Amino acid sequence: MKGIQTISIIGTGNVAFHLGNSFFDQGITISSVFGRNQGEAEAFANQWKSKSVDHISELEADLILVCISDDAISSIMQQLPRSQKIAYTSGSIELSSFTNHENVGVFYPLQTFSKNKELNLNEVPFLIEGKTPELSQELFDLAWNLSSKVSFANSSDRKKYHLAAVWVNNFTNHLSYQSKAIIDKHELNWDYLLPLLKETAAKLLTMDPYDAQTGPARRNDQTVISAHADMLEGIQKELYLLLSKSINDTYNTHD
Amino acid sequence: MKGIQTISIIGTGNVAFHLGNSFFDQGITISSVFGRNQGEAEAFANQWKSKSVDHISELEADLILVCISDDAISSIMQQLPRSQKIAYTSGSIELSSFTNHENVGVFYPLQTFSKNKELNLNEVPFLIEGKTPELSQELFDLAWNLSSKVSFANSSDRKKYHLAAVWVNNFTNHLSYQSKAIIDKHELNWDYLLPLLKETAAKLLTMDPYDAQTGPARRNDQTVISAHADMLEGIQKELYLLLSKSINDTYNTHD
Repeated sequence: MKGIQTISIIGTGNVAFHLGNSFFDQGITISSVFGRNQGEAEAFANQWKSKSVDHISELEADLILVCISDDAISSIMQQLPRSQKIAYTSGSIELSSFTNHENVGVFYPLQTFSKNKELNLNEVPFLIEGKTPELSQELFDLAWNLSSKVSFANSSDRKKYHLAAVWVNNFTNHLSYQSKAIIDKHELNWDYLLPLLKETAAKLLTMDPYDAQTGPARRNDQTVISAHADMLEGIQKELYLLLSKSINDTYNTHD
Repeated sequence: MKGIQTISIIGTGNVAFHLGNSFFDQGITISSVFGRNQGEAEAFANQWKSKSVDHISELEADLILVCISDDAISSIMQQLPRSQKIAYTSGSIELSSFTNHENVGVFYPLQTFSKNKELNLNEVPFLIEGKTPELSQELFDLAWNLSSKVSFANSSDRKKYHLAAVWVNNFTNHLSYQSKAIIDKHELNWDYLLPLLKETAAKLLTMDPYDAQTGPARRNDQTVISAHADMLEGIQKELYLLLSKSINDTYNTHD
């Protein structure tokens, strides 16, 4: 079985960066790189002993990996040959939406990536899907080079994992942003919150979130909730009240 | 200087449990324990080679540590002698509200506690305040036995730390609850989200939350946001939309 020996990457964002680094570290050849940001594409190509190309039509590889935002994918796909093996890294786009391509699949890492944060992909769950069983298996094997947690998932399940991931990462991160905004506004010390952040995650890694919940909203302590709300305004206050209501509903209504 | 040699504890909740364990481990004498839940109070007393008492008036110690919920504190305080050294563990209650007590202070651990989750207090920030400089110092020294991160903080600052902590812990935990609710509803695998949860916290421990943000709301990807919202209902949908709007406002309006 030949499998996928060479990869070309479209995109110069966080996902392209981390996947490309990891392929390169595993000795997988990255033939070429294309990105709207040509400077970044060249920098990536240099790092991966690859080359950057000016036009999508110049990309050549067993697999073209499309690591770009959802709203740009369909216009990029239209520029790729019908029979080319292609995989994309989006959590939300359904495989069935690409009717003009025979050999397209999904290579979705369930993780958050930032260029300035190192990350070992070995623990990252990869969700794999392909239009053909052969491509599914090849993408599975490719992911297996990077991670010990590779699974097949159809588009419907992948979309739900992506939705669940938005809560665990995107929204969770924003809560820390809001917390730090309070700390900064009052010129207090954000470092004091970090042990709590660490323990919050540590608890969630071993406990059911339902059981791990503490705090005024769980206790339905309206005195504290009102005092806190009075210290906030705008959308921060709205968020505080809605999150408190949601916790309160979870523990004090349905129990 | 005599300082605080013996402690009695009021309360049998998560905070009483972890502080008591930690005092006991450090060889600090816990003279007696009082709690509405007498069975729990007896269990705690046995564990700490202490005794449980039936009435608050029977408590005797250099310091009485009140580890109970905010709404129960004032009625308990009324039953304690005017000159008794007392400390309470609440984040929100102002020290000035206890006008009838001369020797009251605050012993506030900025952390989340659950009985079934072990915790080393050494990294936990303790915020200390006292009505007299002598008591402040004694409470500082007492906390220093448990943690290397002890600071003085007035009631106003402590209240803001508590508010910030609600975002980092209570609300963050609830987001994982909501995420797991989606996973469970669709009979998917919650374990797939745990590496993401771990990395989300790891990023926040080293990066500014503003810079760590990723995802559809940061990219203002309305297609994904709408598709996600369509999969939700009730307060979960409200939360999704308000959190997405708040992220969107943070990155796409004010930049």
